Amino acid sequence: MVQIEQDILSKNNAYAHENRQLLAGQGIFALNLVSGPGSGKTTLLCKTITMLGGLPVAVIEGDQQTSQDAERIRATGAPAVQINTGKGCHLDAHMVGHAMSRLALKDDSLLMIENVGNLVCPAAFDLGEGEKVALLSVTEGEDKPAKYPLLFREASLIILTKIDLLPHLDFSVELFTQHLRRVNPSAPLLMLSARSGEGLPAWLEFLRPSLTLNQVQVAGP
Amino acid sequence: MVQIEQDILSKNNAYAHENRQLLAGQGIFALNLVSGPGSGKTTLLCKTITMLGGLPVAVIEGDQQTSQDAERIRATGAPAVQINTGKGCHLDAHMVGHAMSRLALKDDSLLMIENVGNLVCPAAFDLGEGEKVALLSVTEGEDKPAKYPLLFREASLIILTKIDLLPHLDFSVELFTQHLRRVNPSAPLLMLSARSGEGLPAWLEFLRPSLTLNQVQVAGP
Repeated sequence: MVQIEQDILSKNNAYAHENRQLLAGQGIFALNLVSGPGSGKTTLLCKTITMLGGLPVAVIEGDQQTSQDAERIRATGAPAVQINTGKGCHLDAHMVGHAMSRLALKDDSLLMIENVGNLVCPAAFDLGEGEKVALLSVTEGEDKPAKYPLLFREASLIILTKIDLLPHLDFSVELFTQHLRRVNPSAPLLMLSARSGEGLPAWLEFLRPSLTLNQVQVAGP
Repeated sequence: MVQIEQDILSKNNAYAHENRQLLAGQGIFALNLVSGPGSGKTTLLCKTITMLGGLPVAVIEGDQQTSQDAERIRATGAPAVQINTGKGCHLDAHMVGHAMSRLALKDDSLLMIENVGNLVCPAAFDLGEGEKVALLSVTEGEDKPAKYPLLFREASLIILTKIDLLPHLDFSVELFTQHLRRVNPSAPLLMLSARSGEGLPAWLEFLRPSLTLNQVQVAGP
């Protein structure tokens, strides 16, 4: 089994390398968004695309089944390709490479890859992205970085979502941060609510270097 | 890969069969609780054990890492064994068989198996349980039965958790029920909040047939 795992990962890494070269060649900034199911990835993406006001953003959506998320993205005007993984619990770099070519990505654009809702499997698979983003909603509990350390360790950005719900929960941001910092001492942590708009300016600020600065026209939340 | 998958599942099913025979021989009612991360499984278990007031309940906890959940269970007085799956995204019947023998289960007792927080991988693995329970919290969105149909189809009981948060969310119970019924027309649906106690009597009622009726002393929420 270890040999099979190594073979799969090594093939994946070769495809990821290809994707990364293609993206670099076109100056595309790609994010791989990973979280458990229902942490609000699609809602955040829709809001982000709207706030970026017509800047070139394309989206790859991963789900076991349905094309609902890609349809939600397309409703914002951005191109989106849905990958259905069937029994698979994560996207891999080969699938993403195919989706990239279907999207006909623009130079100097932003590519958002929404992985299958899962804190375990996607952590091990490089897709060729520039940043691996781990998202957690405040409803999921403070202990998740300790329980799913691989993802939170590998992530280069952490986003805590649904902070508008904090007044109704027992979630402690301080305790979450302690758990997070034990596995990942340095990745930036953003806290936001796509629903209330709180924290979104910092998130757009994070995306900004990827986009031609004078193109950015950030709409209000 | 298909062959490997078939081999793994067939080995698993043999162990599941053994577990099921052992459980039946001792009159033990076993539940396999499956959900995404942070849906409130451990909190529900702790509350349930307390409300069952000293009845024989044992717990097997699955997580990638940490023994936090088993410690939370032990604090209620119930015996618990933690299984750490490392990179694995689900429990399998072999692991559960080992944990069962470590627990020295009592006759006519209740065994709660809390699977790794994941809506994908655990769905395919029979552990030998009597009931596979799919849990979803109201913060995760109505569309999850459509996106993760295997779990919701296989489950013999569905629990919607954290309903105390409904007033603060856009979650529609009606829309969720529609999605659920498309993949699973008949499994009972319980809606509850371990925090407020709402809906817990129906859950205890579901567990009751497994326990000697005159033993049940249900405490208030």
